[in-house]
Amino acid sequence: MQIINGGVTAPAGFKTAGVHANIKGKGGTKKDVALLVASAPCTAAGVYTLSEVKAAPVLLSQELTASGRLQAVVMNSGNANACTGQQGLQDAKTMTEVAGEALGLDPKLVGVASTGVIGVNLPMDRVIAGIKAAAAVVMAGPVAEVAATADDTATAAATTFGPDAAAEAIMTTDTFPKQVALRFDLNGTPITIGAMAKGSGMIHPNMGTMLGFVTTDAAIAPDALLAALRAATDLSYNMITVDGDTSTNDQVILLANGVAGNEPITLGTPAYETFTAALTEAMTILAKAIARDGEGATKLIEVQVKGAASEAAARAIAKTIVGSSLVKAAAFGADANWGRIIAAAGRAGVPINQFTVTITMGEILVLQDSTPVPFDEELALAYLKGDSILFTVDLKMGEAAATAWGCDLTYDYVKINGSYRT
Amino acid sequence: MQIINGGVTAPAGFKTAGVHANIKGKGGTKKDVALLVASAPCTAAGVYTLSEVKAAPVLLSQELTASGRLQAVVMNSGNANACTGQQGLQDAKTMTEVAGEALGLDPKLVGVASTGVIGVNLPMDRVIAGIKAAAAVVMAGPVAEVAATADDTATAAATTFGPDAAAEAIMTTDTFPKQVALRFDLNGTPITIGAMAKGSGMIHPNMGTMLGFVTTDAAIAPDALLAALRAATDLSYNMITVDGDTSTNDQVILLANGVAGNEPITLGTPAYETFTAALTEAMTILAKAIARDGEGATKLIEVQVKGAASEAAARAIAKTIVGSSLVKAAAFGADANWGRIIAAAGRAGVPINQFTVTITMGEILVLQDSTPVPFDEELALAYLKGDSILFTVDLKMGEAAATAWGCDLTYDYVKINGSYRT
Repeated sequence: MQIINGGVTAPAGFKTAGVHANIKGKGGTKKDVALLVASAPCTAAGVYTLSEVKAAPVLLSQELTASGRLQAVVMNSGNANACTGQQGLQDAKTMTEVAGEALGLDPKLVGVASTGVIGVNLPMDRVIAGIKAAAAVVMAGPVAEVAATADDTATAAATTFGPDAAAEAIMTTDTFPKQVALRFDLNGTPITIGAMAKGSGMIHPNMGTMLGFVTTDAAIAPDALLAALRAATDLSYNMITVDGDTSTNDQVILLANGVAGNEPITLGTPAYETFTAALTEAMTILAKAIARDGEGATKLIEVQVKGAASEAAARAIAKTIVGSSLVKAAAFGADANWGRIIAAAGRAGVPINQFTVTITMGEILVLQDSTPVPFDEELALAYLKGDSILFTVDLKMGEAAATAWGCDLTYDYVKINGSYRT
Repeated sequence: MQIINGGVTAPAGFKTAGVHANIKGKGGTKKDVALLVASAPCTAAGVYTLSEVKAAPVLLSQELTASGRLQAVVMNSGNANACTGQQGLQDAKTMTEVAGEALGLDPKLVGVASTGVIGVNLPMDRVIAGIKAAAAVVMAGPVAEVAATADDTATAAATTFGPDAAAEAIMTTDTFPKQVALRFDLNGTPITIGAMAKGSGMIHPNMGTMLGFVTTDAAIAPDALLAALRAATDLSYNMITVDGDTSTNDQVILLANGVAGNEPITLGTPAYETFTAALTEAMTILAKAIARDGEGATKLIEVQVKGAASEAAARAIAKTIVGSSLVKAAAFGADANWGRIIAAAGRAGVPINQFTVTITMGEILVLQDSTPVPFDEELALAYLKGDSILFTVDLKMGEAAATAWGCDLTYDYVKINGSYRT
């Protein structure tokens, strides 16, 4: 398996555009409307937030993806179109209709995703202008600058073709765009997977995820595509947390256009396993990027739980530890406080043997069979000051393992979220 | 029902002492060992942390309280005696033995509770000296100053008789002691309930609580006492959260000595309901004090959920909202971001109708039937800057309601927990 350039446009037959449409505040230049377009209808699968409060674009995409066919996705940041009532549902539909018309596609083949502030109706004149501008870029091929204008704004917007522009256009409090592509061999046919994602706050596992978009040139049966997406999501996006809060807008959409020409992948075959492993790899890279880019974060925290009685138990414990505010604050302070880790493990809702727990921080053993081990505090401090830290928890109850990712809790998290809306 | 002075010594027949035994760091003067002693054996009940990792004093108290009889409780702060192996279990037992001997009681009548840092064995010479000093105070009655000395410390410690001293001696990161007493009439007999508690961080509902001790002069059957304690805990300590982290050391012990002379209270009677209501009131006052004194907190947040389909649903939603890091950070920043509130409600794990939610902040309506209501931002800012704020969420699905309490997430929470151990 080989990591390559290109994000979601690495597989043949996919194009993207990202434009500035003034949704993220007037006068700025940040991109906030994007399109992902395939040259032909794709087999499509999606996973969505499990929140009881689902944003309008989630409800619509969920309905559209149920057909198993999509050719494009229209996206915006700066406004989540969540808790926006009937108008919000209509606005989401209008986004797909405008994109469909501009791209010459049936709107039923256009998925939709939004992210940003909750409870404010979309500025549809600007959104529509942005979609049209992005569609013009996609239809024309690579273009350096296109103006996206709306009646109430005079700002000409920088517009860019390609995966970077789209990955930037879905960012909110993200500090860097998140995309990856990788290529692997499937029975002699090279297959490519491209993926992009956004997410920084309101990130919590066991749900869909934040926004994620994946493309592949593999030929694959619809049920196999959905199964692969669900399996990969469980091991990647569902194993990260930033703050325990789950978004109303989480969705991941996977488009497969089949242009690689491989024998179509079906469930229960070695090819399915190979494809799912590659998909999991691509999505895990982005999941870790989201965790590292958690709001205010200074470091990535990885928690590996092993020796668990079941995989479900290992997952629950890993996610509880990495989501603990006390563990996260201790990580920020580079305090080797393993008591926070074992206390979090104890409240994960699954049985553990409190007398057989072994904990290491990087290579530093701090607890052996639940007995404190004297360790070099200077060494621990130096390790915990790094930008990537690993906690390993061995429960010695069985053979199951799981890995979860998160970030530290910092002054900047409080700052960002003390004034997110204002 | 009338609030009176005296904390746990307000009911007749209870004495307390709190001493400085140098457990909280040498050279300081903070009290860290306390005794609560009744003049005769009491009917006793306890509730304990549901964490899979239980501290030694929790395991021992749980065993002792199963008999339904206790006459004293020995407590320390500065060290949780958690994750301390066989030595920890022996140390907890020694604490009860030393207290029993000094007080002339069977050690099986002495409960034990600890709070503080995890994973460090107790400095038993200092603990023993502290218990002996506290016992001397209790045996002698009110005394102004008694020296608590241990072999390895020369610091004379200020010692105080009475409820303030004990409430202070169980504090960790608490900024004020927490106690209350109230008196009510039961069929012509005045009954008194006294209570004290500690807790500031590692506070999360649905478990026992942090340390809590309750006394009463009521005569009450053991099964009724335990039922009343469980019911009151569910509505008070189990409805607060500071950070979603559950302690290894949570316990609440309730002692009833019967000296009020009332006809013994039994289950299923109006007297039981009256007693439970009073107990709930006392424990709720302390629960709110713990929430207000959450680590780094600048304000108390109360969340009232009504119109829920069931009480369990109302409780889950109220606790999820008040525990949301995003809601807590927005409260700190006085940002009227109701989107955070409805998003948290959506992930509480119970069904809600996302189109019928009404939210008010104090008296300010911000969301009506899931439609945003324009409101005066200046007024909202002024309200949210207060030291007590109320969010009301009406789901319009049924008749059930619940209230939960918490606090804001601040820079100081991060600061306190970034360097708790070091």
